[in-house]
Amino acid sequence: MSGHLCVVGLGPGDARWRTPEADAALARAEALYGYGPYLDRVPAREGQARHPSGNREEGARAAAALRHVAQGAHVALVSGGDPGVFAMAAAVCAEIEAGPQSWRSLEVAIVPGISAMLAVAARVGAPLGGDFCAISLSDNLKPWELIEQRLAAAAGAGFVIALYNPVSQARPWQLGAALDVLRQQLPAETPVVFGRAVGRPDESVAVKRLDAAEPTGADMATLVIVGSSHTRTIARPGRAPLVYTPRAVEKVSA
Amino acid sequence: MSGHLCVVGLGPGDARWRTPEADAALARAEALYGYGPYLDRVPAREGQARHPSGNREEGARAAAALRHVAQGAHVALVSGGDPGVFAMAAAVCAEIEAGPQSWRSLEVAIVPGISAMLAVAARVGAPLGGDFCAISLSDNLKPWELIEQRLAAAAGAGFVIALYNPVSQARPWQLGAALDVLRQQLPAETPVVFGRAVGRPDESVAVKRLDAAEPTGADMATLVIVGSSHTRTIARPGRAPLVYTPRAVEKVSA
Repeated sequence: MSGHLCVVGLGPGDARWRTPEADAALARAEALYGYGPYLDRVPAREGQARHPSGNREEGARAAAALRHVAQGAHVALVSGGDPGVFAMAAAVCAEIEAGPQSWRSLEVAIVPGISAMLAVAARVGAPLGGDFCAISLSDNLKPWELIEQRLAAAAGAGFVIALYNPVSQARPWQLGAALDVLRQQLPAETPVVFGRAVGRPDESVAVKRLDAAEPTGADMATLVIVGSSHTRTIARPGRAPLVYTPRAVEKVSA
Repeated sequence: MSGHLCVVGLGPGDARWRTPEADAALARAEALYGYGPYLDRVPAREGQARHPSGNREEGARAAAALRHVAQGAHVALVSGGDPGVFAMAAAVCAEIEAGPQSWRSLEVAIVPGISAMLAVAARVGAPLGGDFCAISLSDNLKPWELIEQRLAAAAGAGFVIALYNPVSQARPWQLGAALDVLRQQLPAETPVVFGRAVGRPDESVAVKRLDAAEPTGADMATLVIVGSSHTRTIARPGRAPLVYTPRAVEKVSA
């Protein structure tokens, strides 16, 4: 009796972005764990138990999956996007570190997925074409002061910035405050991409200038990409503009 | 006669990491363009022309693909990993911006893929579990001084750092210099992950401490992840250690 935990990245909403490795891992599992709306994206299979949970219960969900694996089960724990980017893989590692010593002997595999920033970037061109960073705006898990420091450091050093978890009902002001920090560092015309529900039927994508970017353009399903001073917008007749960051930087930015 | 360009991310080496959307785009194309070894990973299809090129010819390759599309062809331009991360999507945008006005009317789509940092991270746990950045060490495209500034800024602000293009025959010293910059900012025990050829039969993954990380651990096929001061290593009996960065940061780092 040897259990197995697979932490599976489903990618963003569209099933055509789910890898064959993820499909195989889901098909093999006896039990599925995950945030309810993510589990709903997995095709049903007879005899496979489903254990949905709420979106603020990552640690408890990871621990429940590990307990099940310790009993010998083959378990898939699903994550939206990529499990390693602000998602379940770190929660599983933290529970293994904090849990019983026997959990360190369990077999654990991570199946990568398309992270939201890659999908949003693909919709508009190549905004992540230069050096870039990813910052979660959730101050449930770290002090807001640290988030502001990181935003300022990243913009000052010329990184394009992908903002995960920009807004939630409990965190209504953080995106506005983040954009204020970035406006102190970046030109007014810097492109800002709001990608909402990308890959789902209700997808919407908008490109704004930083001086006109409103935090109301984002909700819980939105990923925001803020360009660097090198990021460019190409107008196209009859088509949405392309947004891209050149790979080449000729001179050191201010 | 209406052409179409699809910039397709193949993901890292393993075909099980290639999405159904990528497979569909490759199957539809009349002509394939790409760096030779990436094209070799695409299953052959009768009647589909192949145009391999060298790995330093991104701009010329993108322009050739666009010229073909302007003639009405359905073209797929392949990229390893994700096309938006240090790859072909930015080169295509740059050629559209610099090229004839008519190219701005062409239909262009980007198909995202699993980027190398996600695959390498998945192999060891969740090193990218907190805020992180991606930096290309190639100073063919930007001044080395800027790369050093970004490394210092990112490490100082607590980002985990994924290093793309760490080494090439023409750039033998850059990774060593980058590790020296990082040693000035980060604790000696900071985990450094070397993921080489991940997803291919010759895959190898090694985890070192920053004070013992040697640039000889990397080659052109390697992606390097340098942890933050919060990144942890969990020893496991009979298994490789897990490396992860907790999502939560309790206090502001130095």
